[in-house]
Amino acid sequence: MFAAAVGCARAFTRSGSRNAALRVARLTTSATNKPVQQKNKVKQQKVKRRSTTPASDRITSASEDFSQWYLDVIRESDMVDASPIKGCMVIKPWGMSIWDKLRATLDDRITESGAENAYFPLLIPQSFLSKEAEHVDGFAKECAVVTHHRLTEDPDSGGLIPDPAAALEEPLIVRPTSETIIWHMFQKWIASHRDLPFKVNQWANVLRWEMRTRPFLRSSEFLWQEGHTAHATEEDALRTAKEMLDIYTEVVEGTLAVPVVKGYKSANERFAGAEETYTIEALMPNGWALQSGTSHFLGQNFAEAFGVYYQTKEAKRELVWATSWGVSTRLLGAMVMTHSDDAGLVLPPNIAPVQVILVPMTRKNDEEGTATVNALVNNVVTTCMANGIRIKVDDRENMRPGAKYFEWERKGVPLRIDAGPRDAATQSIVVTSRVDNEKRTLSITDKHLAETFHHMLSDIQTHLFAKASNYVHEKTYKVDTYNDLKSRLDQDDLGFFLAYWCADDELEKRIKEDCSVTIRCYPSDKQTELEGKVCFYSGQPATHVALFARAF
Amino acid sequence: MFAAAVGCARAFTRSGSRNAALRVARLTTSATNKPVQQKNKVKQQKVKRRSTTPASDRITSASEDFSQWYLDVIRESDMVDASPIKGCMVIKPWGMSIWDKLRATLDDRITESGAENAYFPLLIPQSFLSKEAEHVDGFAKECAVVTHHRLTEDPDSGGLIPDPAAALEEPLIVRPTSETIIWHMFQKWIASHRDLPFKVNQWANVLRWEMRTRPFLRSSEFLWQEGHTAHATEEDALRTAKEMLDIYTEVVEGTLAVPVVKGYKSANERFAGAEETYTIEALMPNGWALQSGTSHFLGQNFAEAFGVYYQTKEAKRELVWATSWGVSTRLLGAMVMTHSDDAGLVLPPNIAPVQVILVPMTRKNDEEGTATVNALVNNVVTTCMANGIRIKVDDRENMRPGAKYFEWERKGVPLRIDAGPRDAATQSIVVTSRVDNEKRTLSITDKHLAETFHHMLSDIQTHLFAKASNYVHEKTYKVDTYNDLKSRLDQDDLGFFLAYWCADDELEKRIKEDCSVTIRCYPSDKQTELEGKVCFYSGQPATHVALFARAF
Repeated sequence: MFAAAVGCARAFTRSGSRNAALRVARLTTSATNKPVQQKNKVKQQKVKRRSTTPASDRITSASEDFSQWYLDVIRESDMVDASPIKGCMVIKPWGMSIWDKLRATLDDRITESGAENAYFPLLIPQSFLSKEAEHVDGFAKECAVVTHHRLTEDPDSGGLIPDPAAALEEPLIVRPTSETIIWHMFQKWIASHRDLPFKVNQWANVLRWEMRTRPFLRSSEFLWQEGHTAHATEEDALRTAKEMLDIYTEVVEGTLAVPVVKGYKSANERFAGAEETYTIEALMPNGWALQSGTSHFLGQNFAEAFGVYYQTKEAKRELVWATSWGVSTRLLGAMVMTHSDDAGLVLPPNIAPVQVILVPMTRKNDEEGTATVNALVNNVVTTCMANGIRIKVDDRENMRPGAKYFEWERKGVPLRIDAGPRDAATQSIVVTSRVDNEKRTLSITDKHLAETFHHMLSDIQTHLFAKASNYVHEKTYKVDTYNDLKSRLDQDDLGFFLAYWCADDELEKRIKEDCSVTIRCYPSDKQTELEGKVCFYSGQPATHVALFARAF
Repeated sequence: MFAAAVGCARAFTRSGSRNAALRVARLTTSATNKPVQQKNKVKQQKVKRRSTTPASDRITSASEDFSQWYLDVIRESDMVDASPIKGCMVIKPWGMSIWDKLRATLDDRITESGAENAYFPLLIPQSFLSKEAEHVDGFAKECAVVTHHRLTEDPDSGGLIPDPAAALEEPLIVRPTSETIIWHMFQKWIASHRDLPFKVNQWANVLRWEMRTRPFLRSSEFLWQEGHTAHATEEDALRTAKEMLDIYTEVVEGTLAVPVVKGYKSANERFAGAEETYTIEALMPNGWALQSGTSHFLGQNFAEAFGVYYQTKEAKRELVWATSWGVSTRLLGAMVMTHSDDAGLVLPPNIAPVQVILVPMTRKNDEEGTATVNALVNNVVTTCMANGIRIKVDDRENMRPGAKYFEWERKGVPLRIDAGPRDAATQSIVVTSRVDNEKRTLSITDKHLAETFHHMLSDIQTHLFAKASNYVHEKTYKVDTYNDLKSRLDQDDLGFFLAYWCADDELEKRIKEDCSVTIRCYPSDKQTELEGKVCFYSGQPATHVALFARAF
């Protein structure tokens, strides 16, 4: 049985951050096991920091404990906090602003594709779930069930209990996904070929009861978008399913700088109710794969279950064809893991809510100096804002510049500008890159200042994507035999494993049981020249090239 | 007991729109009782329309049945549809695009006020609700209760049932509002005066089980934003509560063109847990008031319930002060009722997702004519888009211009442009206003074309607000005695009733029981010169000027 839903305030964090004893222990471990820094400058900064940072705020080194590092980074960058509800996260303003930015970017692309936003009820009648045979198996087992519509005082204890007089005749399910309610509505809305294609998208919260949760990566409640489309022909539905996967790929790679492999799922790994599931798979720095977005060709399964027919031009009555597709706040987890380091979050400039943080340095009794610094700051801010650069000035009082640097570094802001009286005197600013801590002095009288910023930001974006792509390339192994795969795993050398494969569902399950790797996808660009190839596991003729990995 | 949650597919519509007999009946009634149109042009257009419009698509006249008119308008403008879940609506793309526009506008203002967006869990532990004594009374009685986290097959029936082995130890509530979970988090986040003020905002769905529902105006699930702030001083909290009400006023009046009265609630009508509830109240064309936004000063109630203390500059430990404030999709209902007419929705230009709809008119075999029309269309679209005017071209094939006009009129788009070969020949376009059907011919070679559009749109916005304001002015009555009030009600002459009032909670309840009017607010600008005034009901010395009305 599952644990109680309440009272696990730190379900996400392995050790409570307020546990002082643990904190000190972690600090000690971290200090002694700390990997040698490549750059002295960075090292010095860190040492300096350590003396001013309370122990509770430590970020575990990724090399020491990747899983704890991830939790530390998202906590210390102030993206997220644990909630008192099991497996549900609180997305804090910094995390939310990143999601909102991603949402805006993706929403534009979805709208361009012809889908329109709509909103469907949160609660779904239990019976709806059963209408599509495979769908119910996939989702009935992990959902929140609403059984009453009122609380009342317990005459015995005086506390609250669900009011027995307010039991629902049919329980309602908090949506784990909205195919069923949306296809119920499609039945009312779709009548003719002129109504097709019909494309809607919804930005919403969904809930799937999960045993083991981890903020962004796997939480019971999460935010996502779900697109649902109906088409006159199979071809049009297939085309749309693939088009949406292409859009996901472009946004995830272009905005989050997370490289992905495009492909389609094996029968075992398909969405419950889909005939084909297209997927993008990313590889995290610990060698684990992360499914980052899926697009499903649903055939006529939902149309049949909900009776969605249309009249063709020739006045024939036909079932429509369907797709659905979604990405979620999980993408933030992919971005965090792909780019961040032991100093905290690293944000690709294209997603950063703040691309440039400006820290003015003034002294209390130096009015003249302050005035010149303010003029400098105004100048830079005006230039940046006029050129579409997201700049923010951190002019908080009673906080030292060092503490500000530290905070914005942890929050992953790509560029930092220091501006003090000496900079004002020379009409220059010092710009520091979050990625490599390199400093560059720029003249603010330079007419190309904004352009220089754009270049620097664009270089960081390119660098992050290239670095991540190189990693994926390095960690993608071709395996000829099952022993090849196993020996990699034995050496803890995880990654993407490409193998010729006979597409046998039972053998796939056996591999999963044996070594906890699964087929992430059949990569779309690898399904060629299979003649004469044999499956790496069974020795039977190969039908696919499969990408195996251990997965989140 | 409430009805079953499922199976009331037309909970929102009084008569199913697919009921053919009713449809015909309504058409007949409508045709005979139709009020005389002021403009012949409009009348002719309507007659023409009637012959091509299927009976199911009729909009009941507002003068005939206001309530049915409202339901017809939101259905026929394609803003909303009924869902199979009792009291929960489906917001269709047209309705959603209007909400998204409002959300974007308001979000900018909220962000400017210093609040940052965040996201808190949908599900709230039942025990949280009990922590603030008044809050629990207000919300425990109408919420969706999650008691299980899994469905399983019923061994008897073979259908699904909540899995008895998956009962939650403590039930969870689908948030009716998020004070409790947010204040639980504030306790973790707020420690020092340096953390204050602390301001978060959430865009979310909430659920309150409602008996009688009506889309947008009162639905079980609705979309809203809820802001929650914590402050070091009472003054700062009060200032923020009022500031947010001012922001709501500006957005509702400036964007939706809905005039409101600002004030504060009587003790009876306050939010459960608030010490003061500020409100904006609008008056709908049927004379009923609609509460359109509230901002609460929560005192230290939630801080005390959740133990949220901060350390002052002087190192003292003090409870923080709180506000919360929200507006919801209900505002769309206010906008619809305020401006729409018997031809459908009327959108104020500032909220219209499409401000100008362009309908090109071309003939199939007229290639030359089509080319000149296309050139004209491109010209106009380019000009509009370059000048921030939201224009859309309706180039759907197989649909007559008349049908398009009809559809966009129902959807309330402020301006329509017709562009055919003859217009192209004279380089002119005909622009028709949704509000009065007036037509204006514009030359597209005019350099001030965009400016003219802006003026026309701005005039419509001003006109709609002025018209609505005049109406409120006309229907605001000063009543000196209870008999004055009653005789207005007897004549069905509803509106806002201003009266001197002794602020007696019991008498207020008595009035509500007697004639179903309530105190909507104590208008902020009216609480002066009360000396010597006596209560219109009790004859006791007056302490307030109260605004009474019948309310949605």
